[in-house]
Amino acid sequence: MNSNILITLAYDGTRYDGWQKQGNTDNTIQGKIEAILYKMTGTAIEIAGSGRTDAGVHAKAQTANFHIATDMTPEAIMAYMNKYLPDDISVLSAINAAPRFHSRLSATGKTYRYVINMNAYTDVFNRRFELHHPDSLNIKAMKEAASYLIGTHDFMSFCDTKRMKKSTIRTIENVDLTVEDNKLYIDYTGNGFLYHMARLITGTLIFIGEGKASPDYMEKVIDARDRSLCGPLAPSCGLTLMNVRYDSI
Amino acid sequence: MNSNILITLAYDGTRYDGWQKQGNTDNTIQGKIEAILYKMTGTAIEIAGSGRTDAGVHAKAQTANFHIATDMTPEAIMAYMNKYLPDDISVLSAINAAPRFHSRLSATGKTYRYVINMNAYTDVFNRRFELHHPDSLNIKAMKEAASYLIGTHDFMSFCDTKRMKKSTIRTIENVDLTVEDNKLYIDYTGNGFLYHMARLITGTLIFIGEGKASPDYMEKVIDARDRSLCGPLAPSCGLTLMNVRYDSI
Repeated sequence: MNSNILITLAYDGTRYDGWQKQGNTDNTIQGKIEAILYKMTGTAIEIAGSGRTDAGVHAKAQTANFHIATDMTPEAIMAYMNKYLPDDISVLSAINAAPRFHSRLSATGKTYRYVINMNAYTDVFNRRFELHHPDSLNIKAMKEAASYLIGTHDFMSFCDTKRMKKSTIRTIENVDLTVEDNKLYIDYTGNGFLYHMARLITGTLIFIGEGKASPDYMEKVIDARDRSLCGPLAPSCGLTLMNVRYDSI
Repeated sequence: MNSNILITLAYDGTRYDGWQKQGNTDNTIQGKIEAILYKMTGTAIEIAGSGRTDAGVHAKAQTANFHIATDMTPEAIMAYMNKYLPDDISVLSAINAAPRFHSRLSATGKTYRYVINMNAYTDVFNRRFELHHPDSLNIKAMKEAASYLIGTHDFMSFCDTKRMKKSTIRTIENVDLTVEDNKLYIDYTGNGFLYHMARLITGTLIFIGEGKASPDYMEKVIDARDRSLCGPLAPSCGLTLMNVRYDSI
């Protein structure tokens, strides 16, 4: 039976070279999963992720799909994968999707979260999943700066792909900044994110939160369509892909 | 000025040989902290912990105190320590305690938490801080078994110290079992815990939760005062010292 299986994955990206499979010396999430599918079926099966996460970026619910000729149920495939995956990658669910479903092309939105720990000390239990920034940040200024991001813009200033041939226009639906226990959670929801976009935006928000620029600097950076103006690239460890949205599966 | 400083600590115990300082090749929490106090003062300062945590056991709020002749404020001492501590140990607070305060002798109670993840897959973000037990557990039976622990008992069956000369009588005030997102949290509050006691009790609860014994087996094990009857020692990674209680500081 030919199935199109959609899996949802969580991973601690700390020790991986990102999502996307590389040539030799492969140490990627995609590579690990495909190796297990090969072990399971004896066939090379390519999986399509909803998008690439950078080296060191985590996922609470990344999605991927693959076509497979098998009599195994999705549950059995999930159990097999979890049996052989390292303990920093987990398959949270596996279901049958429509034949033409594609985890990237069918996605209608995504949410990324960036976590900044503003306490004086590291959080020993979550230190791998957040940026430790013990100096205080002006949250009000960051919220104002974030408001300029909402809507459809050319985000070329926040894209690290050189000679990007495709459109750099994206829509950010929402940026939520919430503080709990002196940790700042920045949730970005949009229809798509360019290479390094979430981390470059975060770096610019931090730049503004540190008082190095006023909130409306964000608008200037967006309008300039110039990568050299945005703040520093925020470290990958603080970023987690939280959710990929679909209208139908 | 001579001060008695009480510090509260969090640590990820994964890569340490427990709390208590050892001779050569020291890789303990106590050892790391004393090394920093030596660096800070040029004097060997011994710290007294509220109790020893085993190799691999974590703490959200371990306490320790030490006497120090210094003009530094507790805040400055805390900042110094956090500057030099590795990122899996954090000082959460430092305050002046009464001259005769002792973190172990003055403690009136402690809470330990054991976390069991009963999902089919590992929790990639918390895998170092919990036991992954994907087979279902009978929580009702475990709760009933836990009720036998409440009160003052001789817990010799749950003590791994050979030729224990001191009393093995302890009072357990409370054992709470709560389930959230298919994770079982077992919180033990008592006036003191013997060597391996929390883990041996947890192992016995799991044994009962797996249906290998009935709930009243717990009562038999307590009454027998025989270490060979209790369940297997639960792995250290699932255990965290949550809180140490004082009536006055």
